[in-house]
Amino acid sequence: MRGGEYTRPTAGLAFGYAQANLVILKLELAFDFLLFCQRNAIACPVLEVLEPGCFEAKFLAPGSDIRTDLPRYRVFHQGVLQAEPLSIVDYWQSDFVSFLLGCSFSFEGALLEQGLEVRHISEGRNVPMYVTNVPCRSAGVFSGPLVVSMRPFAARDVAKAVQITGRYKAVHGAPIHIGDPAALGIRDISAPDMGDAVTIRPGELPVFWACGCTPQAVVMQSKPDLVITHAPGHMFVTDLRDRDLEMIGG
Amino acid sequence: MRGGEYTRPTAGLAFGYAQANLVILKLELAFDFLLFCQRNAIACPVLEVLEPGCFEAKFLAPGSDIRTDLPRYRVFHQGVLQAEPLSIVDYWQSDFVSFLLGCSFSFEGALLEQGLEVRHISEGRNVPMYVTNVPCRSAGVFSGPLVVSMRPFAARDVAKAVQITGRYKAVHGAPIHIGDPAALGIRDISAPDMGDAVTIRPGELPVFWACGCTPQAVVMQSKPDLVITHAPGHMFVTDLRDRDLEMIGG
Repeated sequence: MRGGEYTRPTAGLAFGYAQANLVILKLELAFDFLLFCQRNAIACPVLEVLEPGCFEAKFLAPGSDIRTDLPRYRVFHQGVLQAEPLSIVDYWQSDFVSFLLGCSFSFEGALLEQGLEVRHISEGRNVPMYVTNVPCRSAGVFSGPLVVSMRPFAARDVAKAVQITGRYKAVHGAPIHIGDPAALGIRDISAPDMGDAVTIRPGELPVFWACGCTPQAVVMQSKPDLVITHAPGHMFVTDLRDRDLEMIGG
Repeated sequence: MRGGEYTRPTAGLAFGYAQANLVILKLELAFDFLLFCQRNAIACPVLEVLEPGCFEAKFLAPGSDIRTDLPRYRVFHQGVLQAEPLSIVDYWQSDFVSFLLGCSFSFEGALLEQGLEVRHISEGRNVPMYVTNVPCRSAGVFSGPLVVSMRPFAARDVAKAVQITGRYKAVHGAPIHIGDPAALGIRDISAPDMGDAVTIRPGELPVFWACGCTPQAVVMQSKPDLVITHAPGHMFVTDLRDRDLEMIGG
């Protein structure tokens, strides 16, 4: 990724290691955003916050450079997506504060290990994500809707998926909604707002987890001057074992 | 408390309701402090952060006024304790940000319900608290030692106390240390740094929980211009049921 060679989504990559969402913003916005994360901890579980100007994730991946070590980024000016670069070295500013938030890709290894199929991995796609009609709790300048990721499971496997993912609270934990897209304001499950659609077979229910792309929907609504994030599904792969997350999340 | 009539510690008060530590500081310090809490979440579990200038804890106790509704406060100037007023109405500033952090008094009802004795309640004292030699993870201007509270339990009851309190992660959860004060740098268990000493009977072990007075020790070391806290043991009694905390803390 640092060399610009790997530019695809990271689902299914480096099983056993936690992955993270990235949000970078200027120091003057950092308190409001950290408070937003605290108030919406299921969608925005904070794994690490870097010191202002720092671009090494010392806790999650010593020696990393978060300006180059994700496969793809998104640059938002006043809430509008302006670019999707492979590196943000040219965008870096000395007062940038970087937030790394838990990602549900981190529990997919555990789902597979327990014999469950993760559809977007089987189909070689990015996970489907939807902007819901559920408002987040606002904080300072930040307000906007909850984003969810979706994985379909057979009715007999849904409880198992709840129990397995419920152990990983630092990476969104248990689903927030099961089986009724309309109740979340999702009109067409085959047309996700981010990522790719996946097949839902007869007898399967769509299962929804809070998603670390929530800050991106919130940035689009709140329109701060400048925010940089990962591109949806193109995560920061950390050195932390996913089983260590069970402890971080309590 | 609002009328200045109740000025004592709050251990044993309003069983079944969560209690909270208070830290108030100026907006310019708020990001550093919230980050300190995130990095030291066992000692500083955030229950609510009030908007700048706001003194009603809308989530924990609608209708409350955190300037008057605690029995006693502490005012620190550049890390030095200057006053212990019963109200902070005269100290209030429009850019104050108030943090309410979980308090271990919240799980004492559950300990009693399960048949365990809580010594400082039996003896009508404040809980004993100790400044340890364990450094917190620093954040911005804030660095300093971990503070712990101590409750003695018979050897046969220690595991039970761990299991009960482990369910309450939003109010410090399980003990961080059991049975060896010296390993925490505590020289004399009968001389706590805050609160009162309690009797430890033969066959009992001192059991230590991370304590929400940690920010006070950190303020004394970090010496910010102005910080107001609760007086140790003189907590904010909330409207939140302690059993609801089991969910907040995950």
